[in-house]
This record gives sequence, structure tokens and C-alpha cells, in this order.
Amino acid sequence: MKRLGRHAIVDVSEVDEPLRHAEVTSLLTDMASACGATLLRIETHEFGEGHGLTAIAILAESHISLHEWPEHRFVAFDIFVCGSASPEPAIDLIRSRFPDSRVRSGIIDRPGQ
Amino acid sequence: MKRLGRHAIVDVSEVDEPLRHAEVTSLLTDMASACGATLLRIETHEFGEGHGLTAIAILAESHISLHEWPEHRFVAFDIFVCGSASPEPAIDLIRSRFPDSRVRSGIIDRPGQ
Repeated sequence: MKRLGRHAIVDVSEVDEPLRHAEVTSLLTDMASACGATLLRIETHEFGEGHGLTAIAILAESHISLHEWPEHRFVAFDIFVCGSASPEPAIDLIRSRFPDSRVRSGIIDRPGQ
Repeated sequence: MKRLGRHAIVDVSEVDEPLRHAEVTSLLTDMASACGATLLRIETHEFGEGHGLTAIAILAESHISLHEWPEHRFVAFDIFVCGSASPEPAIDLIRSRFPDSRVRSGIIDRPGQ
């Protein structure tokens, strides 16, 4: 069947500092906008000092998720968008936010071929 | 760096009927349990009659997401778990729930190698 969405998987390692809640909310909001997506709301869960956080932006076009492992200096992003939205500009924002980190990204079709 | 989590991407096509909200909540709860994960909460968004729904289970071990396109008879699942949790039993639950559909799955490491 035809492609309905594209899903970017972005792994950021060698992250300098733990993320702050307010910053994550701002970053996900900017990422949704950059994708051309409509942000419905952002849900977060903080695992306590030094234990990272989860943030999920629910979009009209699917979702963006962020999971942080500060003890491993690692952050995992998923950018799953359908319709006319595009994940590439959000990947660029991640690269800008983590200029000194290692950013690996790949994009898959949903459904896969 | 070492693997912190595993992420199953599961595309279900040729789905018979639109999903119901209560059923989705129950399915995600069962999937989290099957993975050996701790469910923190489930967030849903319904796009209106015939337009599908999004449901995201926030786990202590990352997340499970579901996006439905009833007009395309398609449902996309992601099962992203870290630690000792395992996505395979949740994939089995999807196959059981959609016995007459086409289920394609793959698992990637996070971070990727």
C-alpha cells in the first residue's frame, strides 16, 4: 500500500548536559512547527533528578517523542509525521541543538515497503 | 555505545474495522504488561468519527504508540522499551488481535549500531 507517513529515528549520544523540562517543551514545539505539523499537546514525565525525562508531542500528523538517559548522555528522538508534514527540518533542529554531540538519523516509510 | 533499548516498528494493514477507544486502552495496557514494562499512563486523541485515533502509553521504559488511519485500514504501532523489557510479546499480542490483517514488524536497537 502507499506510504502514509515518514518516521525519522534520531539517536543523539555524547550529550553534554541533562535536559531541562522547559527547554524540552520548547524544542518539541519548534520541531513540530518546523515539520509543518499541528501540535495538539505535549505530555511529559520526569523520572527524578538525574534520571531523565520522557516528552511526547501528540500531533495531528502522529507524534514526536523524546526519551533521555542522562546517565548515558543519550537522547532518543522519534519524529513520525504523515500527510504533507516532513521530518527533515526537525532533524536539522536537533543537530543545531546538539552541535557537539553525535547525531545519527534515519527515515523509514510507514507503512514500510 | 551499548544498546539501551529496543524499538519494534509494527505496521498493520488490511485492518477489518475501525478501533474503539476502550479497546485500544485495553490493548496497550496488555501490551505493556506483556513486555514486562511499567505503564505510567495512556494518552489518547480521537480525530472524530471515521478519522481514527492516536494512543500513546507512557512507560517507565519509554513508550508504546498507536496511530490509526481507518480510511486506509492501517494501524501503525511502535514499541520502544529499555532495560529488561522486551517488545516481542507485544508484537505477538498485535498478531493475535489482527489475525486477518497483514502485520509487518522489525526491531531496531536504540542507539543504533
